[in-house]
Amino acid sequence: MKKIGVLLSGCGVYDGAEIHEAVLTLLAIDRAGAEALCLAPNIPQAHVINHLTGQPSLKQTRNVLEEAARIARGDIRDTATTTSADFDALILPGGYGAAKNLCDSAFAGEGEITVEPSVARLIESAFLDKKPLGFICIAPVIAATVLGKYGIELTIGCHEETAASITKTGAVHVPQSVYKTHTDPRYPIVSTPAYMLAKRISEVATGIEALVAEVIRLIK
Amino acid sequence: MKKIGVLLSGCGVYDGAEIHEAVLTLLAIDRAGAEALCLAPNIPQAHVINHLTGQPSLKQTRNVLEEAARIARGDIRDTATTTSADFDALILPGGYGAAKNLCDSAFAGEGEITVEPSVARLIESAFLDKKPLGFICIAPVIAATVLGKYGIELTIGCHEETAASITKTGAVHVPQSVYKTHTDPRYPIVSTPAYMLAKRISEVATGIEALVAEVIRLIK
Repeated sequence: MKKIGVLLSGCGVYDGAEIHEAVLTLLAIDRAGAEALCLAPNIPQAHVINHLTGQPSLKQTRNVLEEAARIARGDIRDTATTTSADFDALILPGGYGAAKNLCDSAFAGEGEITVEPSVARLIESAFLDKKPLGFICIAPVIAATVLGKYGIELTIGCHEETAASITKTGAVHVPQSVYKTHTDPRYPIVSTPAYMLAKRISEVATGIEALVAEVIRLIK
Repeated sequence: MKKIGVLLSGCGVYDGAEIHEAVLTLLAIDRAGAEALCLAPNIPQAHVINHLTGQPSLKQTRNVLEEAARIARGDIRDTATTTSADFDALILPGGYGAAKNLCDSAFAGEGEITVEPSVARLIESAFLDKKPLGFICIAPVIAATVLGKYGIELTIGCHEETAASITKTGAVHVPQSVYKTHTDPRYPIVSTPAYMLAKRISEVATGIEALVAEVIRLIK
C-alpha cells in the first residue's frame, strides 16, 4: 500500500492547517487505496487566533504537533524524526499555518522567507529522492522557498501578490482554476489553489481529489 | 436553498467535535446543493485533551463556540440565539465533545444525563416543528436524552453499553453497520454510527453522505 505523508501546520485556517483541506486530503488518499502518514513539526505556533473574532488570543500558546494531532485523531509523527524513506509521496495542505508555522511568509514582508528546518529538509530530500510532492492552497510558497532554485512550476490560482513572491524565488507561477491542478513538466510536483480561490467546500474537494490522484499516479 | 444546521461541540475528537465527521457533513451538504449553518454553544469546554498524548491539559481552558469556529472557518452562530425557524433540518456530528460539552454523558456514569440547555431547546423545538434531525456517531445519546420520552429509534452501531444507556431513556436502539443509516419509522430522525464503528475515514464519508441525503429527503 502506498504511503502518503500529509504535513500539517496546526488545526484551524487562521493559525494552523486549513481543516477542510486537510480532511479532504485524508479522504482522497483513503479512497484511492493509499495510506496517510500525518506529520507536523514539534514547535510552538506563531500565535493563536480566536476563529470566532479573527483576533489574536495573546495569552495563549499552542504547539503545532499537538494541534495537528486533532486532525490526525492522535496518529501523527514529528517531522524531525521522519525521513523521505518513510513515505512514497508528500502532500502539504494550506491554511495560514503553512505561512506562519511551516514558514514565516505571512510575517516576512519583502524580506527573506525562512522555512522551518525539519520541514525544509523533508521537502528537499523527498524532491531529491524523486518522490512526488503535492502543494495545496498557500503551501506552494513553501515549495518555492525550498525548491525555487530548481525552477519548479507551481500554482496558487491567480493571486498576484503571492504569485510574485513565488516568482522571486526562481520558481514559475502558472495560473490555474480551483477545479484543476498544475503538474510541473519536469518534476513530480503538483499544486492546486483550493481555498486560495474556492468559495465552497465542494470546490476544494474537487481540486484536492485531482491533486491526490495525480500525486499517486506519479509515484514510481 | 435548504439550510441545514450543523451543531458542533468544539474541534477535536477527544474534547470536541470529531473533525472528520464535521467536515464530511459540511461537504455532503454542499454537494447536495444545500447550505450549512454551523452552530455551537458559547460555553467552556469540559476540559482540554492533548491529542498527541491523550492526556488532559490541566492548565488550559477553551470555549466550545470559539474552537468550533475553526471547523466553520469563522462562520458560526451561538445556539443560544438560534431557533428552529433558522434552519430546515439539524445535524449533530459526534466526537467526545458531544458527550462532554453538549451533554455530560461521558462523566454522568449511571446517573442522569444533562443536556446543555440551548442545545436541548433547539433539538426539541426542531422535533416539534417536524424538522428532520440527523445524529452521527455518539450524538444519538443526546437525541435519546432529549427525545427518548417519544420512543424514538436510533443507532450508534453495536456498542452494547451505549445502546443500553439509550434504551434507558425510552428510546429504542437499532443496530446498524457503518455504511448505513437508521431512520425512525414515525419521526424524521436519522442516525449513523460513523467512528463508533469506522476504521477508515472513507467508511465515515459513506455513512455521512447517506445520512445527509436522507435528512434532506425528509425536509417537508
